[in-house]
Amino acid sequence: MRIALDAVGGDFAPDAPVAGAVGALPDLPPTAEIVLLGPQTEVEAELAKHGDASGRIRVIDAPQIVGMAEKPLAAVRSKPHSSIGVGLKLQREGSAHAFISAGNTGAVMAASALILGLHQGVERPAIGAMFPTASKPVLVLDAGANVDTSPREMRSFAHVGAIYARDVMGRKDPAVGLLSIGEEPEKGNAAVKEAHQLLKDEQHAFRFVGNVEGRDILAGHVDVVVCDGFVGNVVLKFYESVAHLFTGLLQREMEETVLRSEAMGRVFTVLDYSTYGGAPLLGVRGVSIICHGRSSARAIRNAIGVAARSVERHLSEHIGADLAGGSAA
Amino acid sequence: MRIALDAVGGDFAPDAPVAGAVGALPDLPPTAEIVLLGPQTEVEAELAKHGDASGRIRVIDAPQIVGMAEKPLAAVRSKPHSSIGVGLKLQREGSAHAFISAGNTGAVMAASALILGLHQGVERPAIGAMFPTASKPVLVLDAGANVDTSPREMRSFAHVGAIYARDVMGRKDPAVGLLSIGEEPEKGNAAVKEAHQLLKDEQHAFRFVGNVEGRDILAGHVDVVVCDGFVGNVVLKFYESVAHLFTGLLQREMEETVLRSEAMGRVFTVLDYSTYGGAPLLGVRGVSIICHGRSSARAIRNAIGVAARSVERHLSEHIGADLAGGSAA
Repeated sequence: MRIALDAVGGDFAPDAPVAGAVGALPDLPPTAEIVLLGPQTEVEAELAKHGDASGRIRVIDAPQIVGMAEKPLAAVRSKPHSSIGVGLKLQREGSAHAFISAGNTGAVMAASALILGLHQGVERPAIGAMFPTASKPVLVLDAGANVDTSPREMRSFAHVGAIYARDVMGRKDPAVGLLSIGEEPEKGNAAVKEAHQLLKDEQHAFRFVGNVEGRDILAGHVDVVVCDGFVGNVVLKFYESVAHLFTGLLQREMEETVLRSEAMGRVFTVLDYSTYGGAPLLGVRGVSIICHGRSSARAIRNAIGVAARSVERHLSEHIGADLAGGSAA
Repeated sequence: MRIALDAVGGDFAPDAPVAGAVGALPDLPPTAEIVLLGPQTEVEAELAKHGDASGRIRVIDAPQIVGMAEKPLAAVRSKPHSSIGVGLKLQREGSAHAFISAGNTGAVMAASALILGLHQGVERPAIGAMFPTASKPVLVLDAGANVDTSPREMRSFAHVGAIYARDVMGRKDPAVGLLSIGEEPEKGNAAVKEAHQLLKDEQHAFRFVGNVEGRDILAGHVDVVVCDGFVGNVVLKFYESVAHLFTGLLQREMEETVLRSEAMGRVFTVLDYSTYGGAPLLGVRGVSIICHGRSSARAIRNAIGVAARSVERHLSEHIGADLAGGSAA
């Protein structure tokens, strides 16, 4: 197994990606390798700081840099030798099995769709975001790859999300909910009401629990929450900001001794996104993981773990087979 | 000033509404009165427990009860003598100036629109939800009265929200943001992009700051966040659940002495919705305040304060004048 990692994407590159790669090695199968993408000299210099002697981390030169604020499609087209372009092409050629980046999200999405291609029946891939809860995390998709999502697209999100929950999150019989504003099938906007009917009327390999509300996302009843990318993106960013608000409030009000206690450490851990390390781009032919721009080395390390699990469990093959089965195509 | 209060609406009725009314008297102008609506004997018995000798709280008989789970429109039509129906008719006749209920939200919305009527240019009223933040609260609307909101409706939400922020929330020069998935005008779904153009291209008596993202809602840059009712409802319910998750986490992890500290009390206060007491239904001709079904006496008391302020500041007249001005009609 070979995992390609964008070493120059994200606010803390190249430090965080390179440290994340070094840190991830013990988590991976002994034969697995990591390929770092970026300007060769720069990345090698960063890697040298870690004195890694495993021989399992290589650098492949990708001299072009896609900035965080660049227009995605234009950047992908004008910079074929960027870390994103080169990393994804390795996967298309079969020289790598997964790609991870904390760089320009739009560019990673566009390049993944263009270079890896999409599974049959997928119009646009969906971003699956892991939401921390008091117990196990929940997958919310789409978290922002699409807007004005059609009912058929929402149905395909349910399928790919359920397979991800089973293969990568280890949920044996995934429960999938459709995000709406009431439990009854007739509650919701036009697209959600139609998606509800599509999901209710078909056979599938997961439990469709019907509509769930905003308050149910974190309640632990469901493994996957399906929604339009506009709604998912708003809720994802809102959740991040609430976690910041809470931790900020605690820091403002509580004394140092309390803040540094183990108990408070456990509270902060729950609210820490980096535990889940990255959001899968679901629907592409292959494995592409998008990390938050502010990803730490720990977040990257965890994203590498997610990528490895996706490869080992044959996530992409399972998604392809399910969608080709026609039920969601 | 006379404020009509549904004494039998909500999970903790009649205790919470009646206690809330008694508690609110000191907050109100000395001539203000409160009218409690519900089955006369039952409500009078509850009121008697408080030994209120002010003479400023009266009971008016409304023998029919609308259940929390009843279909709104059918309930409104079949029960004209419910607390909701009688209370709103008092306002239409001029015998009361505001109505407050923690009962069936859909029924309060439907009855408010039917009985009070809507301001010119309003197709459906919007629910304005107060979101607690680390500093001053922010008004999010629509929080669930509408789905598939049109760009013109979103524009009218911006207008009524800004007037509410000025009149009732005391913001002198309200900043209004349009909820989207990126700051640039071209980011968003079809309806939001069009609403952005409508708001950008017109003159109005508030600052339109453009698009805001999910992470900006609580950041304190804006006084009002405008969105489709589907999105607003999801985010509102999600926020409530996050506040619960967070307090639950603290309760699980922290020791009693810390939990009972004044500092932790301040943290919990920020996360307590009841501080803001109720969501105004904006766009109706009059004042109608919808409280959470789980409202405590404190929440009701605060809602009465909000209603009184709305009446004193001539909120409804200001909204009517703004909308009749044509800019958002």
